[in-house]
Amino acid sequence: MPSQFDPPSGTRDFLAADVERREHAFAVIKSVFAGYGFEPLQTPAFERLDVLMGKYGDEGEKLVFKILRRGEHEASGEADLALRYDMTVPLARVMAAYGSQLPRPYKRYAMGPVWRADRPGRDRYREFVQCDLDTLGSASLLADAETLAAQHDAMVALGLTDFTILLNSRRALAGLLEAFSIPAEIGPGVLISLDKLDKAAPAEVAEELTGRGLAPGQASELVASLTAADAVDQVRVALAKTDEGIAGLDEIDTVLSLLAGQVPAGRITFSPRMVRGLSYYTGPIWEVVAGGVAGSLGSGGRYDHLIEQLGGPDVPGTGASIGVERILALAPGANDPGQTRLDLAVTVLRPDLAAQSFGFAAAGRTAGLRSSVYLGESGQLKRQMKWANDSGARWCVIYGEQEQQGGVVTVRDMSTGEQVQVPADDLGEYLAQAAAAGR
Amino acid sequence: MPSQFDPPSGTRDFLAADVERREHAFAVIKSVFAGYGFEPLQTPAFERLDVLMGKYGDEGEKLVFKILRRGEHEASGEADLALRYDMTVPLARVMAAYGSQLPRPYKRYAMGPVWRADRPGRDRYREFVQCDLDTLGSASLLADAETLAAQHDAMVALGLTDFTILLNSRRALAGLLEAFSIPAEIGPGVLISLDKLDKAAPAEVAEELTGRGLAPGQASELVASLTAADAVDQVRVALAKTDEGIAGLDEIDTVLSLLAGQVPAGRITFSPRMVRGLSYYTGPIWEVVAGGVAGSLGSGGRYDHLIEQLGGPDVPGTGASIGVERILALAPGANDPGQTRLDLAVTVLRPDLAAQSFGFAAAGRTAGLRSSVYLGESGQLKRQMKWANDSGARWCVIYGEQEQQGGVVTVRDMSTGEQVQVPADDLGEYLAQAAAAGR
Repeated sequence: MPSQFDPPSGTRDFLAADVERREHAFAVIKSVFAGYGFEPLQTPAFERLDVLMGKYGDEGEKLVFKILRRGEHEASGEADLALRYDMTVPLARVMAAYGSQLPRPYKRYAMGPVWRADRPGRDRYREFVQCDLDTLGSASLLADAETLAAQHDAMVALGLTDFTILLNSRRALAGLLEAFSIPAEIGPGVLISLDKLDKAAPAEVAEELTGRGLAPGQASELVASLTAADAVDQVRVALAKTDEGIAGLDEIDTVLSLLAGQVPAGRITFSPRMVRGLSYYTGPIWEVVAGGVAGSLGSGGRYDHLIEQLGGPDVPGTGASIGVERILALAPGANDPGQTRLDLAVTVLRPDLAAQSFGFAAAGRTAGLRSSVYLGESGQLKRQMKWANDSGARWCVIYGEQEQQGGVVTVRDMSTGEQVQVPADDLGEYLAQAAAAGR
Repeated sequence: MPSQFDPPSGTRDFLAADVERREHAFAVIKSVFAGYGFEPLQTPAFERLDVLMGKYGDEGEKLVFKILRRGEHEASGEADLALRYDMTVPLARVMAAYGSQLPRPYKRYAMGPVWRADRPGRDRYREFVQCDLDTLGSASLLADAETLAAQHDAMVALGLTDFTILLNSRRALAGLLEAFSIPAEIGPGVLISLDKLDKAAPAEVAEELTGRGLAPGQASELVASLTAADAVDQVRVALAKTDEGIAGLDEIDTVLSLLAGQVPAGRITFSPRMVRGLSYYTGPIWEVVAGGVAGSLGSGGRYDHLIEQLGGPDVPGTGASIGVERILALAPGANDPGQTRLDLAVTVLRPDLAAQSFGFAAAGRTAGLRSSVYLGESGQLKRQMKWANDSGARWCVIYGEQEQQGGVVTVRDMSTGEQVQVPADDLGEYLAQAAAAGR
């Protein structure tokens, strides 16, 4: 039940275990991207409103969070800034602003929150992390293949094994339409219908196609080709008939051959009916799917004119996106906050012993252990041991009157209950050895 | 000169070298905090407007970025959300929302951007990272000392050496006012004036104090005590006269004694005229200053009623803040993007050799090297070598017709110009050894 203390609708608070799980995943992805020579880019959380407007279509624009003007202008009710909606429009702006300072090609990744005023729902948030990698300034298919390989490796590094990359090409799709004599002006609509073949029945899609102006025979022939058991072979034959189809097939086969050594056989396949909804793609396109998961876990493609359309310079580009939030939602969560909060817990049994206890915790940190003294009110050992246990500490240093008189500390192994006495001056060395042995 | 492609006023784009420098600093800080058993917390970039309003005073409230309502409500010109202004109000909300799920005491750090519609200026941004660590639920001075120690260690880990921690106590300040017979109702104003003693002349401050209602003699005596060479001794004598003063001195001396083993002698000192402007502090207060740097690099203090005032439960608290943006601005910047973008550059001299080149880059990554193939148009070795050099690569793999025929690759050491031929199948092993030797 939502309360006044919940975060705003569609957003989340992340407590320790979640932050750690998420940051670990982000670090894994960054490390893979860096391995490919992609470099990080961070842009502000908001952009000037005019930078974002006109870039996302009417539907997208409704989802932009706008920021009210400030000071005397606040009363106008007007906005002049807006929260980042994706990573691509800021990339176009950065290319325009720093083009000559940037390496060419500019291979960058961006990973951070974006904000969309979507209706919140299961796995649909208003604040979520987007993870993009893009190569701008290279028209080479090597760039597409490299982007795809980096995306693939990142997903493997995240622990995913059971996924498939569906590969197609916008040029192949154009060639397909040409081979079936479909007029260019209804092409985009036809592709939108074909994209539904994964979910809708073939007859339904064929009917939709006739509604778009195809002859009934033409529509059912096209649908039959794309849904046949040997669809790939049939489409290859059809594509070989047109220049655009041949060019598209070449794109697909080049990418497949470049990736043959990188991606396990069968994990990437030519998928002739995979369309990718967005109209800006111009070359290879791909989508990462997994059995039992609706929608895609990642996607990508070449978009040779998009950066210019978004206000940047005219550079070819290719990029991929990893659905990190979806992947994080799939992964088994480490939902056990606090279980491993501390390695070493140090008692404070009397105020006059506190400074020494404080020093013992410091010795623990020097030994690489997360260490803290007891910060509560109770001077009772039993109560402090409960705290040590609740913190998930592996060891507890007990320092009371007896220990003080003997110049020692008692180190308790919290899992076995075993206790040893260690000269106070040797504690650092003892803990360093214990830590090394425990690794 | 600002251009239409600049980020919004008061915000910054961070290109690779800056991102890496910043993220390194953040990681260093997190690691220190984790060593003390502080855990991370991440809250959304925005909060409901009513959560933020009434928390920052009139001046602060003007600086809050408000988000326009969406959809049909957009036309109202009203806001219902606002960007995070600090990390403390979200902490109070989180305590209210998840209190029982959180460890007690709850030791958390939060590091991330906050947004303030301040007038942008040198080192003053509208989007900047705030770095807070707080301990809620412990009234013990051990918590203050631990927080201070963690803050200190983080600053040392960031490479700072020449800084001083000024320590005082709100209770000591209250005792001081009492010792000088200053009425409680003008106390806060008197403290505000005393806080100026670092910048303004003593006579000026004394005059301001008489303006606040102190007798001229009283004002000059107070100022003289606080600016004398033996100010600390004079103030200690004065504080010993009142219960509140004694309690404040005890706070200061306890924190100093707890830190004696952790913080080098002289780095932390009792500073009787250090006030900290914010009225919510209730116990020890401190400020980190460095010679030649205006203002503070960090600060902190105990605020036993603040969380309740901010809408959270009634828990004692103490916390510190590190001025990461200031510290980053002080540190010598690694302003050389791209110098170390790649470890291994791989040529692509003919399209039919691309798949092998692609594999060589993969072998480099397996060896732990950031590796990429050439993605440009030119098939010329000279051009590709220039790219390898520009990328800062340590090695370049050259693979042309000769190499193909010999089943080898040429590995060029980019710093010495030395070239060796390595059997293509052995490249991975060769690179792993080279990488290990180069470390």
